[in-house]
Amino acid sequence: MLRNLKITLAYDGSDFHGWQVQPERATIQGTLAAAIERVIGAKILPQGSGRTDAGVHALAQVATCQLDAGIPTENLRSALNHVLPSAIRVLCVEEAEPEFHARKSARAKTYRYRIFRGEICPPLLARYVYHYPYPLDEKAIRAAAALIVGEHDFTSFAAADPERGREEGESSNVRTICSSAWRRIDSAEMSQGRPPDGLNEFVYTVRGSGFLHHMVRNLVGTFLLVGKGALDCAGLKRILEARDRSTAGSTAPACGLYLVSVEY
Amino acid sequence: MLRNLKITLAYDGSDFHGWQVQPERATIQGTLAAAIERVIGAKILPQGSGRTDAGVHALAQVATCQLDAGIPTENLRSALNHVLPSAIRVLCVEEAEPEFHARKSARAKTYRYRIFRGEICPPLLARYVYHYPYPLDEKAIRAAAALIVGEHDFTSFAAADPERGREEGESSNVRTICSSAWRRIDSAEMSQGRPPDGLNEFVYTVRGSGFLHHMVRNLVGTFLLVGKGALDCAGLKRILEARDRSTAGSTAPACGLYLVSVEY
Repeated sequence: MLRNLKITLAYDGSDFHGWQVQPERATIQGTLAAAIERVIGAKILPQGSGRTDAGVHALAQVATCQLDAGIPTENLRSALNHVLPSAIRVLCVEEAEPEFHARKSARAKTYRYRIFRGEICPPLLARYVYHYPYPLDEKAIRAAAALIVGEHDFTSFAAADPERGREEGESSNVRTICSSAWRRIDSAEMSQGRPPDGLNEFVYTVRGSGFLHHMVRNLVGTFLLVGKGALDCAGLKRILEARDRSTAGSTAPACGLYLVSVEY
Repeated sequence: MLRNLKITLAYDGSDFHGWQVQPERATIQGTLAAAIERVIGAKILPQGSGRTDAGVHALAQVATCQLDAGIPTENLRSALNHVLPSAIRVLCVEEAEPEFHARKSARAKTYRYRIFRGEICPPLLARYVYHYPYPLDEKAIRAAAALIVGEHDFTSFAAADPERGREEGESSNVRTICSSAWRRIDSAEMSQGRPPDGLNEFVYTVRGSGFLHHMVRNLVGTFLLVGKGALDCAGLKRILEARDRSTAGSTAPACGLYLVSVEY
């Protein structure tokens, strides 16, 4: 009997060329496919909820694949983790309804972007945050983040390459953002035993119906312009209305971005 | 005027072949020397408080080097961090007394060893802990750790290679351990937003007058034998008294070990 499997996985994207399989390059999708082949002996390409770029991390990416006979579902998680590199972990394998599809069935996604604000970025954090120790008007950034909540055409924040700007099968750049907020958190725990020096991370969390390619990183790059005083809230509104990528800020580095969760 | 500089640095040891400079290989000492050369234009090999092995991390390693003219001491930290890779950070540069020496002046060192006990090790932790999800009698391990406090000959826990067993200039394997304890801590913070599943790290902290090569990792490997029930406290005492490396447990993996601090 054909099982439609929902695989939830976490990864450190630092050493991978993104999600999508590519010849001769280590990718998350390709590495997961190789692990599935080793475990069940069949070539199957798992379909993700969306692509993540090179260097982007995931706390709970979701992928689907169809398997027939072979290893019981409840044994797949440990079998896959046994052959996967430690930078990729399968958190959960479940049998889903036949019509369930990681990308098409997704109703909402949450992303996070971590900026380390301390003067010296601890080496153990360096792969996992964007280090920006310079002055920022964080109050202005918080106000700007609130402006994108609601339904908008996010063309100004999509990757300039139109082929990559949208997920497959999508025909519009309109997306609905349910929440968009920055907060300070303490990553002192991560340096293990060093005295905490205040809440040293400035973290953006955004939840929406869907996201265009590079959209979160382009939003963060634009919020940073606001923080530097180069753009105000009225300017951000004009960028949103312009539907023109060239008006917005640059793309923030991949290493700070996390796909936190996918809702169905 | 010749300045004797005390440099405190943190590093992620994962991608380095240890502290000590080696031809054709990336090491912490070699990378720091190259950074000093780029900043001040002179070839100087900084002397560390001790060597750390390939894959071992440091929260506050100390090194000394002598500089004459050039860049002011207060500017060195940011100048060095500007040219160092993000896996190595200079935390502090101070002028020390002429007789101060990172290794010879050290009075005590603290090391930490992190074991991740959860079933699935989060990818963002994988480089920084030893993942050991199997049953362990942690109460027995805690009791065993207390036994090594005090002055002992640690030959049974030194690297088998006698050349590498001792720091340069040392002639005895007797060391004094001031504290040696395991505790559970929560690394849930490190998975950023995932629900905490209890105190998922079992962490060993040991402070002593000095340590032989591989000593902390060999102690941890032997404590794990105690945790698995293969050795009891009386057996550990016999190993200590045997002064024979072949009697103790295996060397625990480097990735879990941290040089936490050096006291002067």
